[in-house]
Amino acid sequence: MNSFGQVFRVQIFGESHGGGAGVCIDGCPAGIPLVLDDFNNDLRRRKSGAKGTTPRLEGDLPEIVSGVYRNHTTGAPITILFRNENTRSADYNRLIAMPRPGHADFTGNRKFGGYNDPRGGGHFSGRITLGLVAAGVIAKKIIAPVLIDAQLIEVGGSKDIPTKIAEAIAEHDSVGGLIHCRINHAPVGWGSPFFNGLESTLAHILFAIPAVKGVEFGAGFAAAAMKGSQHNDCFIDASGKTLTNNAGGINGGISNGNEINIRIAVKPTSSIGKEQTSFNFETQTMETLYIGGRHDVCIALRVPVVVEAAAAIALADCCCLNTNHE
Amino acid sequence: MNSFGQVFRVQIFGESHGGGAGVCIDGCPAGIPLVLDDFNNDLRRRKSGAKGTTPRLEGDLPEIVSGVYRNHTTGAPITILFRNENTRSADYNRLIAMPRPGHADFTGNRKFGGYNDPRGGGHFSGRITLGLVAAGVIAKKIIAPVLIDAQLIEVGGSKDIPTKIAEAIAEHDSVGGLIHCRINHAPVGWGSPFFNGLESTLAHILFAIPAVKGVEFGAGFAAAAMKGSQHNDCFIDASGKTLTNNAGGINGGISNGNEINIRIAVKPTSSIGKEQTSFNFETQTMETLYIGGRHDVCIALRVPVVVEAAAAIALADCCCLNTNHE
Amino acid sequence: MNSFGQVFRVQIFGESHGGGAGVCIDGCPAGIPLVLDDFNNDLRRRKSGAKGTTPRLEGDLPEIVSGVYRNHTTGAPITILFRNENTRSADYNRLIAMPRPGHADFTGNRKFGGYNDPRGGGHFSGRITLGLVAAGVIAKKIIAPVLIDAQLIEVGGSKDIPTKIAEAIAEHDSVGGLIHCRINHAPVGWGSPFFNGLESTLAHILFAIPAVKGVEFGAGFAAAAMKGSQHNDCFIDASGKTLTNNAGGINGGISNGNEINIRIAVKPTSSIGKEQTSFNFETQTMETLYIGGRHDVCIALRVPVVVEAAAAIALADCCCLNTNHE
Amino acid sequence: MNSFGQVFRVQIFGESHGGGAGVCIDGCPAGIPLVLDDFNNDLRRRKSGAKGTTPRLEGDLPEIVSGVYRNHTTGAPITILFRNENTRSADYNRLIAMPRPGHADFTGNRKFGGYNDPRGGGHFSGRITLGLVAAGVIAKKIIAPVLIDAQLIEVGGSKDIPTKIAEAIAEHDSVGGLIHCRINHAPVGWGSPFFNGLESTLAHILFAIPAVKGVEFGAGFAAAAMKGSQHNDCFIDASGKTLTNNAGGINGGISNGNEINIRIAVKPTSSIGKEQTSFNFETQTMETLYIGGRHDVCIALRVPVVVEAAAAIALADCCCLNTNHE
Repeated sequence: MNSFGQVFRVQIFGESHGGGAGVCIDGCPAGIPLVLDDFNNDLRRRKSGAKGTTPRLEGDLPEIVSGVYRNHTTGAPITILFRNENTRSADYNRLIAMPRPGHADFTGNRKFGGYNDPRGGGHFSGRITLGLVAAGVIAKKIIAPVLIDAQLIEVGGSKDIPTKIAEAIAEHDSVGGLIHCRINHAPVGWGSPFFNGLESTLAHILFAIPAVKGVEFGAGFAAAAMKGSQHNDCFIDASGKTLTNNAGGINGGISNGNEINIRIAVKPTSSIGKEQTSFNFETQTMETLYIGGRHDVCIALRVPVVVEAAAAIALADCCCLNTNHE
Repeated sequence: MNSFGQVFRVQIFGESHGGGAGVCIDGCPAGIPLVLDDFNNDLRRRKSGAKGTTPRLEGDLPEIVSGVYRNHTTGAPITILFRNENTRSADYNRLIAMPRPGHADFTGNRKFGGYNDPRGGGHFSGRITLGLVAAGVIAKKIIAPVLIDAQLIEVGGSKDIPTKIAEAIAEHDSVGGLIHCRINHAPVGWGSPFFNGLESTLAHILFAIPAVKGVEFGAGFAAAAMKGSQHNDCFIDASGKTLTNNAGGINGGISNGNEINIRIAVKPTSSIGKEQTSFNFETQTMETLYIGGRHDVCIALRVPVVVEAAAAIALADCCCLNTNHE
Repeated sequence: MNSFGQVFRVQIFGESHGGGAGVCIDGCPAGIPLVLDDFNNDLRRRKSGAKGTTPRLEGDLPEIVSGVYRNHTTGAPITILFRNENTRSADYNRLIAMPRPGHADFTGNRKFGGYNDPRGGGHFSGRITLGLVAAGVIAKKIIAPVLIDAQLIEVGGSKDIPTKIAEAIAEHDSVGGLIHCRINHAPVGWGSPFFNGLESTLAHILFAIPAVKGVEFGAGFAAAAMKGSQHNDCFIDASGKTLTNNAGGINGGISNGNEINIRIAVKPTSSIGKEQTSFNFETQTMETLYIGGRHDVCIALRVPVVVEAAAAIALADCCCLNTNHE
Repeated sequence: MNSFGQVFRVQIFGESHGGGAGVCIDGCPAGIPLVLDDFNNDLRRRKSGAKGTTPRLEGDLPEIVSGVYRNHTTGAPITILFRNENTRSADYNRLIAMPRPGHADFTGNRKFGGYNDPRGGGHFSGRITLGLVAAGVIAKKIIAPVLIDAQLIEVGGSKDIPTKIAEAIAEHDSVGGLIHCRINHAPVGWGSPFFNGLESTLAHILFAIPAVKGVEFGAGFAAAAMKGSQHNDCFIDASGKTLTNNAGGINGGISNGNEINIRIAVKPTSSIGKEQTSFNFETQTMETLYIGGRHDVCIALRVPVVVEAAAAIALADCCCLNTNHE
C-alpha cells in the first residue's frame, strides 16, 4: 500500500526511469492558496548538485494536473506530476544476477516475481520522494503556524560534516548521517491514544523515507538508561510548558504543546564506487562488484527536506482529524 | 483511531478501572486452533508481580466472546475480553489539578475536553496492552513458523539488570530499559515499498506501546556514523543470506530472509515514589507532588512480550496481504 | 472486514449462540451524554415479540464495557456487549448436509472452509444487528438535530400490512416488505464527490443489513423512466429548497438540504414453516426440507430501526468528516 | 475520499476542463500483461458520439505514467492519465447565480466554499469516469475468467430504445434508462459477512457513478412483494447451483456461484435544451434558465461500460482479499 493518512491522504507513484513520479492527495481542504512557485524552495533543497550528492541534474518541475483552480485548492484530489528526463540507458539485467548490497534489487525482484522495474531502482528510487516533498509543501500550509525544521547535524559520527564528506569522496565510499527535526507551535491535542499516537504516525512515515533506519523522540534511546526522576518533564506553567523536554513534546501519543523533537538515523548510500564482493546468483559464486552510475556520496544531505515533508503530512492528517475531537 | 492493520485488523478498547479491557480482531483467517490455555504463557510473561513490577495482581483471565467455535477461529471477528478486578478507589480529581509528569493526564484531559476517564490512567493505562498480547497470541499462530523473540537486554544503561532494579527500588525511583527483538524464518517479500514498508509498519505498532521512545532496525543509529563499505550487507548464497546484517533483515521496506533485528528504547516508569516538583493548574503555583498507588519500578520488564505481540500483529497483516502478490 | 466508517468507525462482532454480540465504536467524539436507558427505545423497536416476529424473547440488555465515564463518552473506544441467553441446542450438522435455501449456510460454510459457527446462523444471524442498533443510538446523538425516520410502508406488495402478515402466518410462509426512510434537517454539504458520495455510503451500510436486496434514492428506479424536464428539481429559494425532490436530497453525492429519501426492499424471511425441496449435499439427491425453530414471518417488521441506525452511522461519519471541509 | 478498495485500491482524480483526469491504482498484483491497446474497446464504448450522446469528441488516449514495465504490471502503483482537449471557454459564473437543477453546481459550491472548479462540472463531471473505465480494464484481467456484461435494457421505461431517444432529441429533453449487469463464473466465497458483503461493496461503487439512483440485486424490489416460498432459491446440485436466482447470486453477502444479477437505475441527463424555471441566487427571484453547451440526451447509453468497470474493481478487491480466507 502506497498511501498514507486517514483524512489528508497521500498516494505516491512513479519510477526513476519511467514516465515520471508524483503524488495524488485526497482529502485536502478547499481554499488553500497554491501556485507553482510555492514548490520551488523545498524542491531546490531536495535537489541533487551539492557536493556529496549525485551530479544528475534535473529540472524537477512539478505540474499540477488536478485539484487546483484559480490558485487555490478546490477540495478535489490534487495530482502533481514530475516528468523524468536525463535518464541513461544501462544494462539492468546484471542487477538480477548480482543484486547490489544494501539496495532493494533482491527483495524487489523476489517480491514481485521479477516484474519490478529495475531501471534506476524503479519504484524504490529516492526519486519517488519528489511526490512526498510536493505533498509536504501543501501539508505545511495546512498546519501553519506550526513550523517544522529539519537539519543534518552529524555525518559519519561527526559534526564536521564537510570533512566527512570529503573523506568519503576521496575513498569512493559513502557515509551516513543524523538528522534532527524540531516542530514548534503544535497545539496540545494532536495524535490519538494507542495505535494512532503521534510517535506511531510520525515514525510510520519517517521510516518510509529510503535509508532511514532509526527514529527516536525526545531523549529517545538515552531514556532507556535514565531514571524516572531524571526523565520526567515537570510542568512549569498553565500552558503545559515543561522544564525539560525528554518526552519530545508527546505524552500518551498526544502533543503536549512543547517542541516536538525527533532524531532520524540515515544509513550511508548503498551505491559506492569502491569495489565490493557479493554473490552472483547466475554463476553461483562470490564475485567482485563495481557499481558505476551517478550516486550521492551522502544521501543524508538531501533528506532533511524530505523529513520535513513527511512530518508535515502526518501532522496535516492529525490537524484535519483533530477538528472533530475538540 | 485505535485500530491497526489492513487485512488482519486489531481494535483495542478498555480502561484501567472501567468494565474491562480487550481486543476485537477482524480479518483473522478461519481454521486456526485456539483454546484459552494458548493465552497463558504470554499473559503470565506480561503479568505484574516480579521484582520491579507493580504488586497489583489480577487474574487477567481472557474470555473469548466471539469468533471461535469448537476450538478454532471461524473467520468472524474475534472479541477477547478481560474483566477488571482489584481496582482501588482514589481521588483522581487531583490529577486534573496536578497532572503527573510523564503521564498522559494533561494531554488526555485537554484532548478530550475533560471527558477522559482518569482512573488509573483510563484508556492510557498499560493495562490496555492485555488486548495487544491476546491478539499477539493469535498472530503468532498465523505467522508460524516465523519466530519472534524479545528480551530485555539493558536496564538503566547496564546489562546487570538486577542491580539497576534494586537501586531504583531503594531510591523510590524508576528506571528505563532496552529491548532487543529478533524475528527469524520470515520469508523474503513481506512488507511493501514506501508507505507500508516493514520498518514503517513495525515502528508504527511498536511506538503504540506505552513508554516506547525509540526504535531502530539493524545497525540503526550506528548506521548514521558508518560508511557504505562497512554498512552494506554482501550476499553470500542463493537464499539471499548476507555476511553481515546491518540492514536488520529489511531492504527497501521488504524482508530479505535474514533475521529481522529491532532495538526498542523504553523510558522509565513515569510514576515514582520520590517527590517531584510540578505545576498546580488550580493554585497556579509550583508544588511538591507525591504519587501513591502501586507502580512498576521498571515497566521495561513487562514490555518484551508486548513487543513480540506488536511485531506479530504487524507481520500477520503482512502475511495475509502478501498472499496476493506472490 | 466488519468495520465501517472513516472517522466514526463501527466494528461489529458476535454470534447468535456464542458468548454474545456487540459493537466497538472508535472515533466517537468525547462529551456525548450516554446512559443505558438511551438504548431502550430503539432496542425495543428491534425486539422480537410482535405478531409476525419470532417468539424468542430476550432481555437484550446492553452492557457498556468501555469508553463511557460519568455518563458521557470519553473519546476512547466504546464497546457495547449483549450477552446471549435463551439459546436452544439443536442439530446444526444437518445444515451442512442440507443448507437452507436463502440463508448463508452454504456460502458461509464454503467461504470459511467449514469453520463457521452454524448455530442459529452464527455471525450471519440477524442478532448481529443488536450492535448496529446500539451504535445507531450514539450516532443519532452526534447528528442531532438531523432526524431519521424509517417506516415499513408495504408488506407483500400491499399497504394492508396486517392482512399480509396474517396470510403468511396461515400459510406457514414468510413475506417481504418495503421500508421508507426519511432524513430531515441534514445540512448542505454532507458526503464527498465520487467514491464517498452519500448514496454510496448509505447504500453500503444499508445493504449490510441482512435481507436488504434493493436501495433507491428519491425517484430511484422510477427515474429510469423519466425525462429530464420531469426529473430535475428546480430551486425555489435561497436555502436551496427545491420544488420537487426526485433527487432524494442528494446531488453529486452531496446533501442539498432537502429531505433525504430512501426506499429499501427487504426480502421475505428465508426460514419458512412450509416444506421445501432442496439438494442434500451428503446423499447427493433432492430431498424435502422442513425448517423448525423460531422465526420471523416478516423480518421487515423489525428492520426499520436497523435502517435508522445504519443511516445514522453513515451520517455520523459524514458529520465528523465534514468539519474539515467547511 | 476518492479512493475505493481494501487491497486493490483505486484513486480517481481530475476535472473536465483542467489538466486532465485519471486514476492511480495501488495494490495491483505484479505480472499482469498490459498494453495501451487493451484500453481501446472499453474506452470506445464509453465514448461520446453515438446518437443521444454529446457531440464532444475527444481522443481520450490514455497514458500509462507508472507501474508498467515491459508490458506487464510491476506491483508498484499504476497511474493512468487522460489529457483534456477540445474544451470550450464559457461563462461559469452564472452557475453560481443559477445552479443547474439536477447538477452538483449548488452542492459543490457550498461544500467547498466556492473554491470548486465549476468548468464543465469540474470534478463532478462524467469525464471522471475515464479513470474508472481504465481501472476496470485492469480489474477485468485480475478477475478472469469471471465475466461481467452490462447492457442498457430500457430507456424512458420502454425496451424500444431508439424511439425513446429520438423522442427526447425532438423535445430538446433528456431521458433515463435501466441497466442490467450480469456477472458469471464468480467463485463461491467472494464478499465478507456484514459490512463488506458483496451487495454493499458493489452498491457502494455503483452509486459512485454519476446519475445512478437505484441498485437492486436478484429479485430486488420485487422481493419486497414476494413470499419466502417463492423467493427462496433451492439448491439443485453439488456445485451450489440453484433452481431460481432471486438472490442474484449472493447469500449473506457472499457469492454463491450462481450468476450475480444487478439492475441499475440511471436518471435522465440533468442538462436539457428545454427551458427550465429555477431560482437565481443573485437576484433572489425565479427565472427562466437555458442551458447551452454539448450534452448527452441519454447518459445511460454510456453507462454500461462504466458499470462493468465499477463491478470489476469491486470484484478485483474481493478476489485479492479472498486469497487469505480459502
